[in-house]
Amino acid sequence: MSSSAQTIAFIGLGIMGAPMAGHLVAAGHQVRGHDIAPAGLAQLSAAGGETAGSVAEAVAEADVVITMLPNHPQVEAVVLGEDGVLSHAKPNTLLIDMSTIRPESSQTIARQGAERGIRVLDAPVSGGQAGAVEASLSIMVGGSDDDFASAEAILESLGTTIVHVGPAGAGQVVKAANQLLVAGIIALNAEALLLLESSGLDGRKGMEVLAGGLAGSTVLNRKIDNFANREFSPGFRIDLHDKDMGIVESAARTAGVGLPLAGQVAQLVAAAKAHGLGGHDHSALLALIEDLNGKAAA
Amino acid sequence: MSSSAQTIAFIGLGIMGAPMAGHLVAAGHQVRGHDIAPAGLAQLSAAGGETAGSVAEAVAEADVVITMLPNHPQVEAVVLGEDGVLSHAKPNTLLIDMSTIRPESSQTIARQGAERGIRVLDAPVSGGQAGAVEASLSIMVGGSDDDFASAEAILESLGTTIVHVGPAGAGQVVKAANQLLVAGIIALNAEALLLLESSGLDGRKGMEVLAGGLAGSTVLNRKIDNFANREFSPGFRIDLHDKDMGIVESAARTAGVGLPLAGQVAQLVAAAKAHGLGGHDHSALLALIEDLNGKAAA
Amino acid sequence: MSSSAQTIAFIGLGIMGAPMAGHLVAAGHQVRGHDIAPAGLAQLSAAGGETAGSVAEAVAEADVVITMLPNHPQVEAVVLGEDGVLSHAKPNTLLIDMSTIRPESSQTIARQGAERGIRVLDAPVSGGQAGAVEASLSIMVGGSDDDFASAEAILESLGTTIVHVGPAGAGQVVKAANQLLVAGIIALNAEALLLLESSGLDGRKGMEVLAGGLAGSTVLNRKIDNFANREFSPGFRIDLHDKDMGIVESAARTAGVGLPLAGQVAQLVAAAKAHGLGGHDHSALLALIEDLNGKAAA
Amino acid sequence: MSSSAQTIAFIGLGIMGAPMAGHLVAAGHQVRGHDIAPAGLAQLSAAGGETAGSVAEAVAEADVVITMLPNHPQVEAVVLGEDGVLSHAKPNTLLIDMSTIRPESSQTIARQGAERGIRVLDAPVSGGQAGAVEASLSIMVGGSDDDFASAEAILESLGTTIVHVGPAGAGQVVKAANQLLVAGIIALNAEALLLLESSGLDGRKGMEVLAGGLAGSTVLNRKIDNFANREFSPGFRIDLHDKDMGIVESAARTAGVGLPLAGQVAQLVAAAKAHGLGGHDHSALLALIEDLNGKAAA
Repeated sequence: MSSSAQTIAFIGLGIMGAPMAGHLVAAGHQVRGHDIAPAGLAQLSAAGGETAGSVAEAVAEADVVITMLPNHPQVEAVVLGEDGVLSHAKPNTLLIDMSTIRPESSQTIARQGAERGIRVLDAPVSGGQAGAVEASLSIMVGGSDDDFASAEAILESLGTTIVHVGPAGAGQVVKAANQLLVAGIIALNAEALLLLESSGLDGRKGMEVLAGGLAGSTVLNRKIDNFANREFSPGFRIDLHDKDMGIVESAARTAGVGLPLAGQVAQLVAAAKAHGLGGHDHSALLALIEDLNGKAAA
Repeated sequence: MSSSAQTIAFIGLGIMGAPMAGHLVAAGHQVRGHDIAPAGLAQLSAAGGETAGSVAEAVAEADVVITMLPNHPQVEAVVLGEDGVLSHAKPNTLLIDMSTIRPESSQTIARQGAERGIRVLDAPVSGGQAGAVEASLSIMVGGSDDDFASAEAILESLGTTIVHVGPAGAGQVVKAANQLLVAGIIALNAEALLLLESSGLDGRKGMEVLAGGLAGSTVLNRKIDNFANREFSPGFRIDLHDKDMGIVESAARTAGVGLPLAGQVAQLVAAAKAHGLGGHDHSALLALIEDLNGKAAA
Repeated sequence: MSSSAQTIAFIGLGIMGAPMAGHLVAAGHQVRGHDIAPAGLAQLSAAGGETAGSVAEAVAEADVVITMLPNHPQVEAVVLGEDGVLSHAKPNTLLIDMSTIRPESSQTIARQGAERGIRVLDAPVSGGQAGAVEASLSIMVGGSDDDFASAEAILESLGTTIVHVGPAGAGQVVKAANQLLVAGIIALNAEALLLLESSGLDGRKGMEVLAGGLAGSTVLNRKIDNFANREFSPGFRIDLHDKDMGIVESAARTAGVGLPLAGQVAQLVAAAKAHGLGGHDHSALLALIEDLNGKAAA
Repeated sequence: MSSSAQTIAFIGLGIMGAPMAGHLVAAGHQVRGHDIAPAGLAQLSAAGGETAGSVAEAVAEADVVITMLPNHPQVEAVVLGEDGVLSHAKPNTLLIDMSTIRPESSQTIARQGAERGIRVLDAPVSGGQAGAVEASLSIMVGGSDDDFASAEAILESLGTTIVHVGPAGAGQVVKAANQLLVAGIIALNAEALLLLESSGLDGRKGMEVLAGGLAGSTVLNRKIDNFANREFSPGFRIDLHDKDMGIVESAARTAGVGLPLAGQVAQLVAAAKAHGLGGHDHSALLALIEDLNGKAAA
């Protein structure tokens, strides 16, 4: 677990990547970032990092490459594409993809990386923008023990819960399982609250009772105010959770299993986005279930 | 909150009612119990209570009547039927129905009780046989403030969490919401675990990671060993949870709402019972989802 | 299959019962009807039937009693209650309950009827008000072969498809299976149409193609205009189909099976009613699925 | 609708493509086929067609290129990849992709084709191997009116129902809607049959009644013997329908809609494959639902 300064290429300087790259600069690393949009580049420069005009430029000389991109098409293009990471990174470079993408793509990237002597970890995160800014992300890592050991110090600059969960792709699988559970538990709590209130009960009071027993959950503990007050500022946006439920569907397909509840939950999240709730906190599945039942949001 | 000794009629001395009646004897009340089966009567006698050969006999002279019966047909027969509680209880008797039944029936009983000057609370419980034996039940109470106040001391002899959740029927609604959440969260955890393991990951390790974040729940905390080891000794039996999901369906119907996830969950629990898992802990929904996917139980 | 005139008591002269009773008068039977509301009584008188001020009065002297009531509480009260059919009908009277109720209740009624020497058939119908008026109902009959034979001529005055489907309760089970399929197929067609139109295709054209192949259904053939034009005048009302989906849930519970799709469909129909679509044709599940997805009705 | 002989490159000579290519030879076209496996090449030669050792070789000089490949990765590789169809086809060649793939990929192929002056139709089929062998396929075509007109004669050699359903990708969307409906209607019929039989009724008899009314469907008409006899020789295999349900999920995502029933159905089909039913007819969803409920296949 070396904590010596490394040369880190950071590709993807959006609302997650920009603060993350900044933490790596603060930790003493030489960070060279690249993004197609100027805002992130400016933020990184202001934080003391360097900017590069291309992936190739960022990656040359890097010991470690970190990617933080929206979904697998972007990650595959940046890593596997012409002029991408694998074409320009030095042998034995460690690629840490911190994007949330389908496990199948993480495994493809790991496999193609190995063919070129590039070591690959998938390390998707939980904790949203707040977690990125506060360096309090949860990071679920897939890849070899040695590569995880190499990465730990860097990841510890970015998050507070770092767990090696399995081989290549395992980080993405755990992230998918996480998102399946969170969306499903939100939706179940929404249905429970609708039942309570439509039966004439005080919803908050009922939820407080539920929270204290076997029905309790971290979702309920953290989002009881969102639910009770119909207050849905993100938090974590429905449209991002919709993307993640697409990953759940892909992960199930790759694993060769059918998950009937997850299938329904995924479609309800997609409907929530179509319903116009994409920019709301994922607890707004409550608004969807209420509208389904003809109840105006309280 | 008077704690003075009361004359309590206790109807229904099964695996829940017998230990509960025993606690009331130990608390100094004069308990007169009735059940159609002899085992409960014997247990109550051994605990120092009295037994009655009929509901009418148990209820005469009682200040408080407690019913603890399997479902609404039994409660309705015992309370509303010929020679039932309402026909024989003194005016101003307090009836505390601690059975778990559909809210519609609790409201009918409260209404008919009121017509005869009988005060009624619905006070279903959580915590199973262990909770009954250890007097550690959670009790969700519906009814008036005054009647709740009258009942509190008695309920405190039976449980450790006693909450007045609303008017007549409210206890049952909260119990239903509880059971909806517990079954749904078990099923979602089962699907998450199946996804993890079918993707080649260590299931327990993955669940430990999930438990630590927003995906966490009391179900996962308490049942991680059941899940990881496929160890399904009850706990709380699938067949009882199936009965409770029928109550969820009834509660939704009475409340005039449609709950699409709960609808699927209710049917999965019913299928689990049909599958032969009725005597298992409700965490055995995992076995159902695995069998659905052609996986032998680990 | 005697077609000789019989004395028929007809209990329940609503939008279904009144025209049905009228057809029996026209077929030459002596019909004595009863209803708590005056409109049906007036309609029967105008059609040449007699009216009775009570169930007891209607049923005395009747060879056959027909009940056509909203749901099982009404049927159970009228048949099993004090002063009900079983209390006043002559031994060997044939009771044909043509209401749509849960199979469990039909079986209870058949059992209690048998104890009193009253023969019982359950004979729920399909075809709605139009079918009742036009005597073109489909009638699914449960009960013994002999009792079915006794009833056939009467039923042939009321409908065009009369099938003996099994023993007591079987008519209700087939009716429930029918309603499960119809609601589910409507909902699937709604989802298919939403997919077509949201992909930029002409919905009607797409549905015409689907109708011609393995995806085709009587629902699609009969309701393509409802779907394509968002024209939802009943038809068969959502609120009645919601009642029937409650019967599906009950039938599954009685049969000891879990039906995961039916569970979700039942809750979607309930949500449609809560959404305000109760008075619309059941094809309005399309409007529900569209609203779920934030699409205004076309 | 010229029926003059054309030079047709046929890529993908599997159980569908080989007989289809054979029909084009019989219709008088000069067919040059390519496949990575020798069996299809041999079958085409035997039918009088020519074989090519590569896509490039097959496509050179072709007026029309037909692809009939398993899924979008294969179609994208063959069409868009290095040495693929777009790299070697003459300008103004008509590419008819008759594979069943996600609409998103068909649209990508049409767009990239247009950039190179290649005209593209998506023309997925229904009717399985039997339909291919008997030239009785149903073909749903997306693309321009002119290109459809150019293709009609060729398609008429392959099928009996050829419909132009919309622009590029529309064929795939209609195919997806078709598969959503077929799988869902099979599953609903399975649940209905389970309800009938578990209630003690004769399942076939009950299904015959259902088939005659609003609950009827082409699925029920064609598969009543499969259902009643638990006879599941394909037909159309579960594993292919599972692939198609993945396409449904993709099509919904592309169209920006959430389809809650389809989501559950897709996962049940995936579970059926995991359950070991992948080689059975898709009516074997009945076996899955029965096993879920602990019933051995009759």
